Amino acid sequence: MKINGKYYRTVWFSDDKRSISIIDQTKLPFKFEILKLTTVTDVANAIQNMNVRGAPLIGAAAAYGVAIAMNDDPSDENLVNAYNLLVKTRPTAINLKWALDRCITVLKQISIEQRTIQAAILAEQISNEDIEICKSIGIHGLNEIKKILENKKDKSVVNILTHCNAGWLATVDWGTALAPIYMAHESGINVHVWVDETRPRNQGGLTAFELGSHDVPHTFIADNIGGHLMQHGLVDLCIVGTDRTTARGDVCNKIGTYLKALAAKVNNVPFYVALPSPSIDFTVYDGVKEIPIEERSAEEQAYVYGLDENDKLSKVNIVPVGTPCGNFAFDVTPAEFITGGLITERGVCEASERGLAQLFPDLKIKGAAHG
Amino acid sequence: MKINGKYYRTVWFSDDKRSISIIDQTKLPFKFEILKLTTVTDVANAIQNMNVRGAPLIGAAAAYGVAIAMNDDPSDENLVNAYNLLVKTRPTAINLKWALDRCITVLKQISIEQRTIQAAILAEQISNEDIEICKSIGIHGLNEIKKILENKKDKSVVNILTHCNAGWLATVDWGTALAPIYMAHESGINVHVWVDETRPRNQGGLTAFELGSHDVPHTFIADNIGGHLMQHGLVDLCIVGTDRTTARGDVCNKIGTYLKALAAKVNNVPFYVALPSPSIDFTVYDGVKEIPIEERSAEEQAYVYGLDENDKLSKVNIVPVGTPCGNFAFDVTPAEFITGGLITERGVCEASERGLAQLFPDLKIKGAAHG
Repeated sequence: MKINGKYYRTVWFSDDKRSISIIDQTKLPFKFEILKLTTVTDVANAIQNMNVRGAPLIGAAAAYGVAIAMNDDPSDENLVNAYNLLVKTRPTAINLKWALDRCITVLKQISIEQRTIQAAILAEQISNEDIEICKSIGIHGLNEIKKILENKKDKSVVNILTHCNAGWLATVDWGTALAPIYMAHESGINVHVWVDETRPRNQGGLTAFELGSHDVPHTFIADNIGGHLMQHGLVDLCIVGTDRTTARGDVCNKIGTYLKALAAKVNNVPFYVALPSPSIDFTVYDGVKEIPIEERSAEEQAYVYGLDENDKLSKVNIVPVGTPCGNFAFDVTPAEFITGGLITERGVCEASERGLAQLFPDLKIKGAAHG
Repeated sequence: MKINGKYYRTVWFSDDKRSISIIDQTKLPFKFEILKLTTVTDVANAIQNMNVRGAPLIGAAAAYGVAIAMNDDPSDENLVNAYNLLVKTRPTAINLKWALDRCITVLKQISIEQRTIQAAILAEQISNEDIEICKSIGIHGLNEIKKILENKKDKSVVNILTHCNAGWLATVDWGTALAPIYMAHESGINVHVWVDETRPRNQGGLTAFELGSHDVPHTFIADNIGGHLMQHGLVDLCIVGTDRTTARGDVCNKIGTYLKALAAKVNNVPFYVALPSPSIDFTVYDGVKEIPIEERSAEEQAYVYGLDENDKLSKVNIVPVGTPCGNFAFDVTPAEFITGGLITERGVCEASERGLAQLFPDLKIKGAAHG
């Protein structure tokens, strides 16, 4: 996708081919800066500190991290060390483990001499696959948007609510939840997006930045507002991304997703989750009971980042002295509330064990073997 | 209630008896400052700019505003002018209109010579009544907390979630939603409060400030978190306040209340609304259809206030350049989701036409006459 008219991916090999470049997402939407990562530790830190974020992008970045490690030292020991370092950087996103498992499985079978080059090729391959997956999600999601528009009385606009950032900044390109929106916009449909702020990290700012860069009409709202909008017919559908989806279609995603899904269900607004198949974890069934929820620091809740009166990136502390903060980063939306369905690269299915098994019989068998 | 060991109300006559003092709530929870208001225009501005806020307190402040106006010029014309100026400061809180209607009805019947002193007495009377009402709400709410605690397996703690600030800062003293919590804490029950941040104005900071000043254990959370907490059994009950409750028990309150009520219903968590009877509007029935929702400025969504790195009260802009903001300030929670009930100064009733009519037959008749 484009920023100021120039085409970018979110992660790529630097010109030296020994390091990678990323868009520093901790500076967005305020400053656009490229960050160079030259060691596997740099990559691990960038994932942990959320310089790169978004489940699909974390997977791709980790694969590049393995490539950097293999360039330094392609030994079996270093391969395992790189895996162990990277896999523990974020606990929720299944894509991270999926990408690393794929790297270690492939690279273990390759001779030490060939491993450096093959690790680099594999990282590029995982990234390119991610782009193709996102494009397919976009096409399938676009069909859903068209159907909803056809059934609307007022066909002048489609109002879509999204939470967090599941746009191209969260993937290598295109995005998951936003891919159908970009495609609808490009196909001439008048899309308007309600962008949830997504406290405490305000990733809604990233979504607004993306949509603004592509001239997609949008409105930035507090997380509290979506229920009211749905109650008053101001949302035609919701689309969000996911960090992990279980075998029965429970969706783990950014904290607050669950509340929007409840409001959508009560108000008959179709609720969709857009996901690449690497986000599906067939080894997990009951998401509420089985998925560990990452608790992050109190500082993340207390400090809000933005531009101060001198246009300088600053932070303010919004919490009274002595008040502790709770900061659960994700929640699980049970499948019954994903009323629109799951938008995947293979098509749209019901959020259910049957729906996922029909679309991904191959993956389901592998998952069952793990489970 | 107390701040740093000293007893305060939220509004009172200054020593000169010609002006009033308020706690400036736009500075809280960061700075504790007293603001002196000397004209009815000052009072109107203070209500509009939310230096005073909270439905019951707005009503009391408006009555003081009328008293100030009558001190300047007790003519019929000035009484009407004061009414008209004050009544349009905030569109949602019914208490404002209730207090002003009461002032104008009483004062019109009083001679010009007596009007100044009677207006002052009336303002004090409305404030004192508010305190008594809040105390009664506290006692009735405490009973509910005790019942819920008795039915808990783990009796070591009661976890209560609240949204926005319906504490003593929103009233003259004690608060509505927080009154039962203060009474539970004072009676030795181990209460822990989940405090919703309440974007975009972060009134959760006021609640945290209040609770901290009274040593009530609490945790400050993003508005997105409550659903997850309820799903995992970490909330025993919710209590919120209200700006206006309809004849059938629909509750208009700070934006985001509705989302929490949905989560409470789905997860079998009793959801209570604490309200003084002046918040009931018997002339309105269907809250979603009939209550106009105040839309506030985009700036309120874009700028977040807090302490910067030099401990100075500052603001940061969190929204990308060119992104518009939507800012609906309230939402309506239909009665069916108020599963715990309405906690009033006369007791607790079902959130329904029958429940309210049984508790307030006198008010219902008056409301029907208006309707």
